Amino acid sequence: MERRSARSCGLWMGELAPGLHNDITDVPGVLVGHVSLIKGYGPLIPGVGPVRTGITAIRPHPGNIYREPCRAGIHVMNGFGKSLGVPYIQETGLLNSPIFLTNTLSVYDAAQGMLTYLLQENPEIGHDARTPNLVVFECDDSYLNDIRGRHVKPWDGILALNRAAAGPLAQGCVGAGVGMCLFQLKGGIGSASRIVPSQGKDYRVGMLALTNFGHLEDMLINGVPIGLMMKRANLQEMLCQVPGSLILVGMTDAPLSCRQLHMLAARAPMGLGRTGGISRMGSGEFCLMVSNTGLEFEAPLSDWELDPFFKAVVEITAESIWNSLFYATSMVGRDWHLCQALPIAEVLSWMG
Amino acid sequence: MERRSARSCGLWMGELAPGLHNDITDVPGVLVGHVSLIKGYGPLIPGVGPVRTGITAIRPHPGNIYREPCRAGIHVMNGFGKSLGVPYIQETGLLNSPIFLTNTLSVYDAAQGMLTYLLQENPEIGHDARTPNLVVFECDDSYLNDIRGRHVKPWDGILALNRAAAGPLAQGCVGAGVGMCLFQLKGGIGSASRIVPSQGKDYRVGMLALTNFGHLEDMLINGVPIGLMMKRANLQEMLCQVPGSLILVGMTDAPLSCRQLHMLAARAPMGLGRTGGISRMGSGEFCLMVSNTGLEFEAPLSDWELDPFFKAVVEITAESIWNSLFYATSMVGRDWHLCQALPIAEVLSWMG
Amino acid sequence: MERRSARSCGLWMGELAPGLHNDITDVPGVLVGHVSLIKGYGPLIPGVGPVRTGITAIRPHPGNIYREPCRAGIHVMNGFGKSLGVPYIQETGLLNSPIFLTNTLSVYDAAQGMLTYLLQENPEIGHDARTPNLVVFECDDSYLNDIRGRHVKPWDGILALNRAAAGPLAQGCVGAGVGMCLFQLKGGIGSASRIVPSQGKDYRVGMLALTNFGHLEDMLINGVPIGLMMKRANLQEMLCQVPGSLILVGMTDAPLSCRQLHMLAARAPMGLGRTGGISRMGSGEFCLMVSNTGLEFEAPLSDWELDPFFKAVVEITAESIWNSLFYATSMVGRDWHLCQALPIAEVLSWMG
Amino acid sequence: MERRSARSCGLWMGELAPGLHNDITDVPGVLVGHVSLIKGYGPLIPGVGPVRTGITAIRPHPGNIYREPCRAGIHVMNGFGKSLGVPYIQETGLLNSPIFLTNTLSVYDAAQGMLTYLLQENPEIGHDARTPNLVVFECDDSYLNDIRGRHVKPWDGILALNRAAAGPLAQGCVGAGVGMCLFQLKGGIGSASRIVPSQGKDYRVGMLALTNFGHLEDMLINGVPIGLMMKRANLQEMLCQVPGSLILVGMTDAPLSCRQLHMLAARAPMGLGRTGGISRMGSGEFCLMVSNTGLEFEAPLSDWELDPFFKAVVEITAESIWNSLFYATSMVGRDWHLCQALPIAEVLSWMG
Repeated sequence: MERRSARSCGLWMGELAPGLHNDITDVPGVLVGHVSLIKGYGPLIPGVGPVRTGITAIRPHPGNIYREPCRAGIHVMNGFGKSLGVPYIQETGLLNSPIFLTNTLSVYDAAQGMLTYLLQENPEIGHDARTPNLVVFECDDSYLNDIRGRHVKPWDGILALNRAAAGPLAQGCVGAGVGMCLFQLKGGIGSASRIVPSQGKDYRVGMLALTNFGHLEDMLINGVPIGLMMKRANLQEMLCQVPGSLILVGMTDAPLSCRQLHMLAARAPMGLGRTGGISRMGSGEFCLMVSNTGLEFEAPLSDWELDPFFKAVVEITAESIWNSLFYATSMVGRDWHLCQALPIAEVLSWMG
Repeated sequence: MERRSARSCGLWMGELAPGLHNDITDVPGVLVGHVSLIKGYGPLIPGVGPVRTGITAIRPHPGNIYREPCRAGIHVMNGFGKSLGVPYIQETGLLNSPIFLTNTLSVYDAAQGMLTYLLQENPEIGHDARTPNLVVFECDDSYLNDIRGRHVKPWDGILALNRAAAGPLAQGCVGAGVGMCLFQLKGGIGSASRIVPSQGKDYRVGMLALTNFGHLEDMLINGVPIGLMMKRANLQEMLCQVPGSLILVGMTDAPLSCRQLHMLAARAPMGLGRTGGISRMGSGEFCLMVSNTGLEFEAPLSDWELDPFFKAVVEITAESIWNSLFYATSMVGRDWHLCQALPIAEVLSWMG
Repeated sequence: MERRSARSCGLWMGELAPGLHNDITDVPGVLVGHVSLIKGYGPLIPGVGPVRTGITAIRPHPGNIYREPCRAGIHVMNGFGKSLGVPYIQETGLLNSPIFLTNTLSVYDAAQGMLTYLLQENPEIGHDARTPNLVVFECDDSYLNDIRGRHVKPWDGILALNRAAAGPLAQGCVGAGVGMCLFQLKGGIGSASRIVPSQGKDYRVGMLALTNFGHLEDMLINGVPIGLMMKRANLQEMLCQVPGSLILVGMTDAPLSCRQLHMLAARAPMGLGRTGGISRMGSGEFCLMVSNTGLEFEAPLSDWELDPFFKAVVEITAESIWNSLFYATSMVGRDWHLCQALPIAEVLSWMG
Repeated sequence: MERRSARSCGLWMGELAPGLHNDITDVPGVLVGHVSLIKGYGPLIPGVGPVRTGITAIRPHPGNIYREPCRAGIHVMNGFGKSLGVPYIQETGLLNSPIFLTNTLSVYDAAQGMLTYLLQENPEIGHDARTPNLVVFECDDSYLNDIRGRHVKPWDGILALNRAAAGPLAQGCVGAGVGMCLFQLKGGIGSASRIVPSQGKDYRVGMLALTNFGHLEDMLINGVPIGLMMKRANLQEMLCQVPGSLILVGMTDAPLSCRQLHMLAARAPMGLGRTGGISRMGSGEFCLMVSNTGLEFEAPLSDWELDPFFKAVVEITAESIWNSLFYATSMVGRDWHLCQALPIAEVLSWMG
C-alpha cells in the first residue's frame, strides 16, 4: 500500500484545522532539509556499514539565525538523552543556531558541521562576539545502522542546511529518520500543523517528530490498541529492539515569550500519551518550541489566549508521531535486522 | 443509569491487570476518608451557601506518618495551583504528613486541622523536633459551591483522617469531589489500580484523581471524541464554566527511591493525554507519587525495571479520570448552576 | 552598645550606593508592617507561652495587589521549607497577594488572615474571578518561642497589613524576626538597598531578610571568621540550637520580566556566601524578587543590562543578613533559652 | 614572585583541614591530565594562532567509567553555557564518561576524541549496549586565544586522558586554563580539598575549578575588596575583556546518592560568593559533584550528616577559585592582549 498520512487514510486527527501542507513548513519561514545515508547490507562491519542513518536540519527562518535569534522554550520529558544545547535555552529562552537531528554517536560530527557553517557566516564569532549555542538532538538508530561507524560527517550537516527548503516536507525514512524504529515498527520523520486564530490573525503551529521509541503493545491509534492486536495476531516477523527516544521540534509564528513557549512544549507529553507512548526508561524525550517572529513583539499574546495553542500542540504531537509511522516504509539494516512498516490496510480494517 | 466504573461498562482500560478493588486502596496500608458537605440550594449567599464541597484525606499507611515518613516524588504539570507542601517534597523526597484534597479557599482551614492532629499525635514537634511539611492539594469548586464561605473547617479535616479506611473506595461526588466539574460535566473523585509483577513479587500501584478541568470538546473516551460529538448533538442543557485543575495522588508498595517516584509521576501527563486533557491555562495540575514501604529498602528496584510501573501510571491516570466521570452524578449548586453527569448509556451506544 | 546598622559601624558594605534609608522601603511604593508578639517568660507551657514571635507583611505597592499583580521570580536555594505559594510563582511569574513572613506553625493562621483580607477587598474572588495565590514564608522560632501555641492569629496578619508603611524600616527583633536566631546569636529582620543607574534612570533594589540559620563558627563578617574567633574565645554563655531557615524578599522598581527577576533571585546565594552561610541541612532558603512597576513595560531592560542589578542583589543579601545581626538585641525565651546579641564593640575591635 | 597557593601565602582558607595535596586528586582514585597548547604570538590569524588554549581530563577512577559509572549531581548556577551532557546527569544521576574541560568552540573536537576513546575501550557500545553520555565543559578563552582556529583536536583529548594521573595537580595556566581570565586578571585551573570525618571514617572532598569570569572590581580576597583597590590604584596596564564562565567539578569518596550530590553542588554558589563572584550575564556556571565509590553503597550517609560536606564544598569552591588566581602567571595572547597575573606581593601587603 502506498504510504500516506494518517489523516489522508480517513483517521480523525483532532479538532483544529491543519495548514496547507499539514507539516512544520506551514509556519512561514521555516525550512527543513534532509540528508539520507543508505548504503550496504548484510552483517555489521563496524566503520563500514550497513549505513542506515542521516541528518535533518531545521532553520526557523531563512535569515542569519545567529544574528537574528528566536525565542524558544524546551520541555524535558525524559532527560535520558545526549542532545546538545539544552541548558542555554533553559537559561536564556533563545535559539541562536539552526537545529540538527541525527543519530546519537553523530551529534558531535553534526555539531562540527554546524559550527563551521556558523563561523563562516559570522566572522565576528569568537573574535569580538559571543559564541552560538549549537542545538543538536539525537536518537539511537543502532538497530538498523552501523552507529559506531559515525557515518554522518560534518559536511552532511552543511549539506542538510543548504538543502533546507519550504514544504511540503518529505516524511518517513528520510534524514535523521532513516534508521529509526517506532513501537518496534518503522518510524522516522513525521510532521503536522494547525492554524490557530487569535486576535484576528491566523497563526501557524507546526511540529516535526523524530520517532524511535516504544514497544508494539504500547501503540494506540485513536485509542484503539492496534499494537496489542498486532502482537496477539502475531503479525510481525521480527520486532525491533528499540533503544528509544523521541525528539519533537515545534515552530510557530505567534508572538510568544520564552515562558509561554515552554508552556506549549510542556503540553507535548499529552500528545505523546494519545499515541500510547509511556516514555520508557532510556528513552530521551525532549520538546523544543520556537517562535520565529523575532525578538521584538508588537502585541504579545496573554497567557489566557494560549489554550488553542495548547490544543494545537497536543494534536500535532500525536499526528506527527502517527505520520512518521504511516509514511515510513520497511527497512532492512545491519545484520539483516528488519524493521517492518505499519500494515496500513490491516490497521484501517481493524479500526472499522 | 446506575453509576459504575468505566471498566465495568465494558471499556478497554489498558493492558495491565487491576487490583482487587481497582482503586488506590489496593496498595496495602493505604487508607482514604471523605467528608462531603452538601447543604442548601438556590442563589449564592456568600458565607451561607449553597455548600457543595468537601475534603478527602489519604493516609499512606496506618502508622504515624510524621515519625515514619515515606519516600515521595512530585511532578508539576502546570504549576497554576495553590497547593501546600510542594517545595519540601522536591528537596527532600519525603512525605511526612497525610494528604488532604479540598477546595482552593479551604486549604488553610484544612491545614489547620491537619496541624492540630499532628501536634496532638506528636508532642515533640516544635519542642525538640522539627515541624512536618503539610501537604494539601486543591481544585476550585466555585461553579457549584459557595467557595468564599470556606465551609470546610479544620475539624472536617480531622474527621476525614479519622474516617480514613481501606477499600473499596467511594468515588464520584464525594469528599473533595463533591463540587468538581470535568470536561464541563460532573467530575470529582476517581481511582484505579494495577498489579505490577517485578522480581518475583506482585507490587501494587494505585491512583486517586480529583478532576476539575477541561472543556467538553476536549474529552476523549478511548480515543473517540465523545465530547465533540456531545457538543455537536447539543446534548447538554448547561455547560459548567470550569476554573480548572487536576490533582493526582499515586501510591505504591514497590521499593522505589524518590528519584524513581518522580519518574513515575512524570508519566502522568501521558495518561491525562489519553482522556483528551490539554492542561488549559489556569489549570493547576500536580502528580504526587508515594512509596509506602518505609525508608529502608532491602532490594531497591533498578531503573531498568520501571517500565511496567510507567505503563501502570499512564493507565491508572486515564482510568481514574474516566472513573470520576463515570461515577459522578448530576449536581445542582449555587445560583442553580447545573453540572450534568456523563450520559453513560448514550456514550456507550456511540462507542459501538 | 546601641544597635545600629553594619554600615554605620564603619564596615565596608560593597561598591554600589544605598538608597535613602538603606532598606527595602527605598523602592518607591513598598510598604512593610510588623506585629511583634512578646509575652511571658520561664518554662514552656504549650499553648500559653512564653511567646516570642510575630508577623511581617510586605506590600509591593499601596494598591490592590490582587487586581494589580506584579511580576516575580523565585529561587529555591534549599527547598527544606513549608512556605506557601511557590509553585504558582514559578509557573506564572506573577505575585497577586501581599507577602507574609511568620513562624513555621503559624503560616496557616497567617494565610487565613490574608485570605479574609483579600476576600473582603475583592468581592469578585471565587464568584466570577479566580482565587489569589497566597504567599507566606516561614522560619522556625521554636528555640525561643512556644511555637506549638500558634500565637500568631489571622487578625495579626491583617493588623500587619494595615500597619504596612513606608520607611525607614524597623529591623532586628521585630515582626517575624522576634524569635529568630542567626549563627546561634540573635537574628531577625534585616534590610538594605541599592541605587542602580540604568538607561538614564535610577532604579532601586531593596532586600528584606528574615534570618534564622547557621552555626556560630560559620559566621564571616567581611571575610573575617568572627564566629570562629568568638567560639574559640568562648565568649558566649549559651548557643542557640537553630532549626534553620533564611527568607529573602527583594523588590525593585526596574521593569524586569519574570525570567530576569528569577535571574536576580538566583544571585542571592552569592550574597549568603559572603556572610559565611552554607545552607545547612534543614534550612529552608528562598529568595523572591518582585518588580512593582506593573505588568506593562514601556522599555524593558535587556539581559545585558542586568549586571549592576546582580551586584546589587549580592551586596544587599549580605548586608541585610548582617544588619539583622547588628540590629537585633539579646532575648530570653522559653525555658530560659537565651539568644545573645552580636557583641558589636568586640567584633569591631577584632576587625581592626 | 613565585606562584603558589593562596593558603601557602598565609591566607585563612576556612575551618576544615585540607587533604595531602590540597587538590582534587586527594580523593582516592581521581586522576587528572592536562594538555596545554601555547604557540605563536602577535596578531590574530584565524586558524593559525596565536594559540593559548588546552584541554583538561578528569577521570573519577582508574577503571572503565562506562562500565563502572558513578553517582553524580549537577547544579546549574547560570545556564549560559554550551557544555555537553547536562540533561542526562539531571535525569539519571549518573556519570558514565570521563570529564573534559576545554574552550567553547572545541567542545565538539574534544567530544570526538572522548567518543573514539570510549568506542575503542568498549566494543559493545552501539552494538548491543547503550551509548555513553559525554560530559564536556567549556569556557571562552577568545581574549587570548584564536578560538576560531579550534586548535584542540580529538587526539589532544585522548592524550589528556592518557596523561591523567594522581596528584599533586598542576594549577594555573595549564590544560583548559591556559587562556582563561579571572576578574580581568589571569585565571585558569585551581583546586583544593578537604578531609571530612563522618561515621568514624575520613572522607575526601575535592574541587577543580576552571575560572574565566568577573570584573576586577568584583574580586574579594577573604572579604577585602582587593579588586576595587587595584582598580583605584590603577595598577593594571590592561584589563581583559572576559566573556565569562566558571566550571566546577567536585569529587568525593563518600557514599552519597545523586540527590545528596546535587545538594552538595547547590552549595557552590556560596563559595563563589566569597570570592566576590556575582555570576554576570553571559557567564555559564555549572557545578558537577561526583561520588566515585561505585553504585552499591554499604552504608549511605543520612541527609543529617551532610553539613560538614556542605562546608567543605563552600570552602573548596572559594579556595579553588583563589588558587587559580594565585598560581596563574601573566600571559600575552592574540593581538598582543595581555592578561596579568595577580600581583601577590602587593595583595598580601594590602591585606595586612
